[in-house]
Amino acid sequence: MAAGVKAAGASQPDATALVDAALAGDRLALARILTAVENRTPLAEAALRRLFPLAGRAHLVGITGPPGSGKSTLVSALIAAVREQGRAVGVIAVDPSSPITGGALLGDRVRMQAYSTDRDVFIRSMAARGHAGGLASTSTAAAAVLDAAGFDLILLETVGTGQSEVEVAAAADTTVVLEAPEMGDEVQAIKAGLLEVADIVVVNKGDRPGAQRTASQLRAMLVAVGRAGAKGAKGAGAGAGAGAGAVRPRPKEPEVLLTTATTGAGIPELLGSLDRHRARGHEASDTPARLARAEAQVWAILADRLRADLHAPAIREATAATMREVAAHELDPFAAADRLLTELRVPDPRR
Amino acid sequence: MAAGVKAAGASQPDATALVDAALAGDRLALARILTAVENRTPLAEAALRRLFPLAGRAHLVGITGPPGSGKSTLVSALIAAVREQGRAVGVIAVDPSSPITGGALLGDRVRMQAYSTDRDVFIRSMAARGHAGGLASTSTAAAAVLDAAGFDLILLETVGTGQSEVEVAAAADTTVVLEAPEMGDEVQAIKAGLLEVADIVVVNKGDRPGAQRTASQLRAMLVAVGRAGAKGAKGAGAGAGAGAGAVRPRPKEPEVLLTTATTGAGIPELLGSLDRHRARGHEASDTPARLARAEAQVWAILADRLRADLHAPAIREATAATMREVAAHELDPFAAADRLLTELRVPDPRR
Repeated sequence: MAAGVKAAGASQPDATALVDAALAGDRLALARILTAVENRTPLAEAALRRLFPLAGRAHLVGITGPPGSGKSTLVSALIAAVREQGRAVGVIAVDPSSPITGGALLGDRVRMQAYSTDRDVFIRSMAARGHAGGLASTSTAAAAVLDAAGFDLILLETVGTGQSEVEVAAAADTTVVLEAPEMGDEVQAIKAGLLEVADIVVVNKGDRPGAQRTASQLRAMLVAVGRAGAKGAKGAGAGAGAGAGAVRPRPKEPEVLLTTATTGAGIPELLGSLDRHRARGHEASDTPARLARAEAQVWAILADRLRADLHAPAIREATAATMREVAAHELDPFAAADRLLTELRVPDPRR
Repeated sequence: MAAGVKAAGASQPDATALVDAALAGDRLALARILTAVENRTPLAEAALRRLFPLAGRAHLVGITGPPGSGKSTLVSALIAAVREQGRAVGVIAVDPSSPITGGALLGDRVRMQAYSTDRDVFIRSMAARGHAGGLASTSTAAAAVLDAAGFDLILLETVGTGQSEVEVAAAADTTVVLEAPEMGDEVQAIKAGLLEVADIVVVNKGDRPGAQRTASQLRAMLVAVGRAGAKGAKGAGAGAGAGAGAVRPRPKEPEVLLTTATTGAGIPELLGSLDRHRARGHEASDTPARLARAEAQVWAILADRLRADLHAPAIREATAATMREVAAHELDPFAAADRLLTELRVPDPRR
């Protein structure tokens, strides 16, 4: 029962109090839980074990696209539109170029600060580096926390140029891929891979020249991607786990919408499209996206526990020595893995 | 001894012949081995086990930076300069915007094709998606193959906006971070994180207005990063493994160089800087970067084997059922991980 990190027992009372406070609407408590999740402290396990059964109701929307496509401005516009409907909205930004994580344009920061007193808007940036597979499991766990805390819509903003980041967005219930008109050849090259994971494609900066033409090009590309047959990276997200959610046929060609996030044009239409996608049977618990998220979380915990075992005092030195032998090319990594598995006393069913 | 994928035995003879051919200079055989490594087929294990002991001599250089900084043009220029010295150079491009992976500018493609008949230049793109931690372990394994095949310098090109991609470049012996002058606010925001992993910073497109100013700004930022104290993400790469290579003090402030890759200006200076960094004691087998690479590989193999175990006929259905329970929020992921660990019959030393 203990966490794979440190003894969780000591922080258990804290966790109970914090979870109760977070569920009662205490945003500071919510923030502390998310910090624990991000840092994988023992508190995180205790809190998540209590919160997880309460989650599973929110609509998780991934928003990804290349830098400069205006993701964070679109997120701001979506927040405003969702708040007008009276719904609570949470944002998890896994994006090094996001103003939320400390980056860019003053205008966006001001827009975000407009919600600093609105208890039904919760914005959180995630660094989540330094852990293979950590981005997916950390952001998924953070989404479960916001979900349990009653946020109805959760936006997962990631930059669409990294493998892990695309997988995070692709594991959402609905994946929105953003593009801007005429982003230049180099950025265009990213599109094909991104389009594979899209449920909805948005051409932002729709007031720029070429926006309509970009939308037409994207529709043509989507037909080509659709013919190629699969929503590849959606399944790829599940690869971290035990293999459910493999490549599946695209149920429906993604819509291509135009928005101008800076003026709000097209945002109501985007919200409508999100709601339709949610309603189209994507709320079932066994969708590939939900299985992929479950697997990402379970696998990350499993890996954490095995790592902790390899660090246990009894074999810590042996593990380090094995790694040094591999680094010196005196031992191949397969033989090293076999040795570590033996040290972990995992019975190998194949032998 | 069997692979964590399928029975490796059947393809063993193929592997021996292929490895012998690759070591004798057969580039098609080399390409087939790299394909196996990329796709994690049983052939990969057999080949890597033979090739790994022969590797460990090459200088592995990570080249990363935001889209538009001119990474692939710089790589082309480096190839030309290295070939003039008579050294063999391998390139592994993990970059969705790279012309090598099918993206962008015709000019660059033509430049790459110039080496299609040069047996001492080997260029390979890596998709490597769909596997948590896969990017690091796959590119590291591919580098070991090229290393064993006698390539003296191996360039690992990644786009510096994704977590996994930055970690791949950061786990090289020498990490070069590329910037272009005045890339705009949004892209500037990426810099701080990238600079943490840099051994050498290159301002490319040095003939553009503002290049000198960008270099000055970067030097100022590097002093600030240096004061903050650590080469964070270098250690982060090691996080995938058993924890060596944690945050370490930066041994020396990174140099900031100007290049104009399109004309070749500054390229000899960059090569000189690479060689100095290599000579500065970074060839030892127990550097944090080499330990991080070893750990990434070992951990990926360990994870593959455990995944295969969870997929074994005896417990495949139980695993899938557990994942469905988590997806339905009927079981928390910690309890699920504990259940799977029991199914794997891993004795938990903490209990």
